Amino acid sequence: MTRERHHRREGRERPVVSAEVAKIAQPIHKYPLLELLQPEAVQTIHQKSMEVLRDIGIAFLDDAEAQDILTARGVTVRDQIAYFDPDLVMEYVRKAPAQFTQLARNPANHVQIGGDRLTFIPVYGPPFVLDMERGRREAKLVDFENFVKLAYLSPYLHHSGGTVVEPTDEPVATRHLDMVFSHIKYSDKAFMGSVTSALNAQDSVRMAEILFGAEKIRETPALVSLINASSPRRFDDRMLGSMKVYAKARQGLLISPFVLSGAMSPVSNAATIVQMNAETLAGIAFVQMIQPGCPVIYGSFQATIDLQNGAPTFGTPEAQMALYMSAQMARFYNLPFRSGGMFTSSKIPDAQAAYESIMAMLPTLYARVNFIVHAAGWLEGGLVAGYEKFVLDCELLGMFHKFLGGVDLSDDAFAMDSIREVLPGGHHLGTDHTMRHFRTAFYRADLFDANSAEQWREMGSLDSYQRANAKYKKLLRAYEAPSLDPGVEEALKDFMARRKQELGQ
Amino acid sequence: MTRERHHRREGRERPVVSAEVAKIAQPIHKYPLLELLQPEAVQTIHQKSMEVLRDIGIAFLDDAEAQDILTARGVTVRDQIAYFDPDLVMEYVRKAPAQFTQLARNPANHVQIGGDRLTFIPVYGPPFVLDMERGRREAKLVDFENFVKLAYLSPYLHHSGGTVVEPTDEPVATRHLDMVFSHIKYSDKAFMGSVTSALNAQDSVRMAEILFGAEKIRETPALVSLINASSPRRFDDRMLGSMKVYAKARQGLLISPFVLSGAMSPVSNAATIVQMNAETLAGIAFVQMIQPGCPVIYGSFQATIDLQNGAPTFGTPEAQMALYMSAQMARFYNLPFRSGGMFTSSKIPDAQAAYESIMAMLPTLYARVNFIVHAAGWLEGGLVAGYEKFVLDCELLGMFHKFLGGVDLSDDAFAMDSIREVLPGGHHLGTDHTMRHFRTAFYRADLFDANSAEQWREMGSLDSYQRANAKYKKLLRAYEAPSLDPGVEEALKDFMARRKQELGQ
Repeated sequence: MTRERHHRREGRERPVVSAEVAKIAQPIHKYPLLELLQPEAVQTIHQKSMEVLRDIGIAFLDDAEAQDILTARGVTVRDQIAYFDPDLVMEYVRKAPAQFTQLARNPANHVQIGGDRLTFIPVYGPPFVLDMERGRREAKLVDFENFVKLAYLSPYLHHSGGTVVEPTDEPVATRHLDMVFSHIKYSDKAFMGSVTSALNAQDSVRMAEILFGAEKIRETPALVSLINASSPRRFDDRMLGSMKVYAKARQGLLISPFVLSGAMSPVSNAATIVQMNAETLAGIAFVQMIQPGCPVIYGSFQATIDLQNGAPTFGTPEAQMALYMSAQMARFYNLPFRSGGMFTSSKIPDAQAAYESIMAMLPTLYARVNFIVHAAGWLEGGLVAGYEKFVLDCELLGMFHKFLGGVDLSDDAFAMDSIREVLPGGHHLGTDHTMRHFRTAFYRADLFDANSAEQWREMGSLDSYQRANAKYKKLLRAYEAPSLDPGVEEALKDFMARRKQELGQ
Repeated sequence: MTRERHHRREGRERPVVSAEVAKIAQPIHKYPLLELLQPEAVQTIHQKSMEVLRDIGIAFLDDAEAQDILTARGVTVRDQIAYFDPDLVMEYVRKAPAQFTQLARNPANHVQIGGDRLTFIPVYGPPFVLDMERGRREAKLVDFENFVKLAYLSPYLHHSGGTVVEPTDEPVATRHLDMVFSHIKYSDKAFMGSVTSALNAQDSVRMAEILFGAEKIRETPALVSLINASSPRRFDDRMLGSMKVYAKARQGLLISPFVLSGAMSPVSNAATIVQMNAETLAGIAFVQMIQPGCPVIYGSFQATIDLQNGAPTFGTPEAQMALYMSAQMARFYNLPFRSGGMFTSSKIPDAQAAYESIMAMLPTLYARVNFIVHAAGWLEGGLVAGYEKFVLDCELLGMFHKFLGGVDLSDDAFAMDSIREVLPGGHHLGTDHTMRHFRTAFYRADLFDANSAEQWREMGSLDSYQRANAKYKKLLRAYEAPSLDPGVEEALKDFMARRKQELGQ
């Protein structure tokens, strides 16, 4: 009985790695945009941000070289705080490209960043992982590899991401090497570089050069790396060090304040967006001062806090408004835009996790966000990467691809003959039109059970957490690494060995 | 320890019935609309729908009076199928008002239906209920009463709904009386009438007359009742009977095909919308032929099926597109619009339920749906009303109210002094601006846990299903019925007793 049940389930599932996986391209946004702000409001936010940049200033902390770069370009730096002339800021911001390509080692996986393209990217940064059987625990390198593999296997993620989890079992000084190597070894999608120090950024660039060639990555960036302003109004030396390295190497930079409104900015969205906009523009101008034309992404990570206990809250209506507002600002400056993700405070992939995740994520479609980090796997305010959450989120990404595919208004789609042919009260299950289209008509979410209650009970009354547990394990069992040139792999390993020795490991 | 923990939880929760409950009004949609279709596509759908009405026709089954009404107004009826001249259809459709008011027995709860207003309404129709402790079981009258009470207690539901669950322990012939009475007795919000037969519709009208007065409800409708086309292209005698009664009494009618694409319509959205549009317009024209100016709502219930096993599927990308398309059609005809809901196929309120629900529901905000049935409680494809799902969904409705509140762009909201006052890297927790706004700045979802993992474990590692279980029970314990005029209650009970006798119970 148990076996039979098992077989029936297996039989219902689609193969986990299908031929079509590689063929699913980045979605292109074809719909009108949803914009909450009138053009005058965008202007007002712009003007007030300029006021912040000119009169209130942004700290560029503990980095004399960064301060010298700013001063040399005409920025006033006083007590480590940079005061920008609005015209000067805009002059440099305008040097950034409106869109750019990021290299992947499989050319079919190069990503177009900006314009009407969306890029879905895994969760970034969690020091912990969760799965149903082993619970919450510190993330290890094997978890890092697993999430890279899961991202590789999803046709709906276009990017391998960066610190998909923090491999806490590797030494802090050298784990960036293991992370970059894992991205290269276990996936053939684009990835992000380390931002934990200037040296680590330099190692990331070096490994990208080994993989792609130094010339090639100067033409087209191989890395897009995440620079967080430590809001309010501050870039620290760690981030400035990484920015300088990547800008000099002409690699992509995602400049993104990380703001919990009420803590790192005022509670109101208008003020939050003004502050974040000023921070982002200061970072982008700084990058362009180092390397005019360097690819950048205008970033915005905003959430709120529970004002009764200070806890971060996600998927809130306020954050949804903030995303739409930031999207309009990014478009105002004609820059690729990053925001959103499958955010939740929940500790487990329960209903709360899903409600909050979609509330935070669905606006990325309607606002046409170009670069969506944390599109799969996020739990517990970003402290945890969930295995089951990851594959559940990927189901939604599949739905989003379908939605973004656009409305078919061809004569065939109007199917007037079918409407005519089926009698009142009849059904369309066997019509020519249905038979021609039934395989592709609807996106099918494997993990979402549409069976009757009876069938569902027969199959063990599993909730989606349990079904996702089976799915991620099946995916990892079926995983096969994309082939990597042995010479390149050798060279990368040699580089890592040398650097680990130099770094005293 | 357990007690202390219990106390701490209690202390964290807000009072379940607060003074502000009654004050939360229907949200007004102030944002630009998200529309997927260009105006020409709307025209094309209109033209093709007219073709369906003129050449393919809509069955008005087994109701000679209905067929006579159509014939008398110039519609060709052949073999029970009505063929409408497009100009004639549009002439009658134009008689329907663009918006209208529905009476509630508490005048503060009158609802505005249409225009830029949204109305959130509970689940409609489930024969089963689910709660965590007692599991899935047949719905009884006590469940009906409970869901009416829960809807009454939610500040985010503006309407008591109709058949919130099917009270299967009451005789079929008379349960409509118990349902209407429960809506009146246990809530003071607007409600829907019975559509199970012309006689039952007549009883619903009579009870509304007892409550409000016969004159008054002729001026302003007290009932809005749900008429489903039994697609494809068909109204049955049960629905036609109810339509005639309500139209003659000038009560509101929601004319809504219920379509699972691939079964009751072609698999493509273009064809589905054409067919549904033709069905809805035929119903609306019919109502206007009986009672010109009768308030109607343009309805659209569309979902898809799993084409491998025929099961209905919800929250799909295809349904999301269909909702946006139908919304544009309703606006094209200048009619109030019904669609969407917290739909899911899931048997329990797990992550699947929440993902699907928000996918189906969030478009109701962006497309400005006016009348949103199933806004709370739906599970298992509509077969089950979930107690926990109901209160979980209500959290989201709260968020939607906040989102629809609009972006505050006042000088105070820009908080430039606060931005200036907080040093780089400082925090906004104690600023004047934060102190002035912290109570109202963010919508706070009681059921969504934002605590640290440690706090969450201390409080019992509850998932949102468990927390919702505690919440709905607490709500029902704290419930107090709104006062009802004893004379009215007496008259209603007398009427019911007489009708039950007549109906042989």
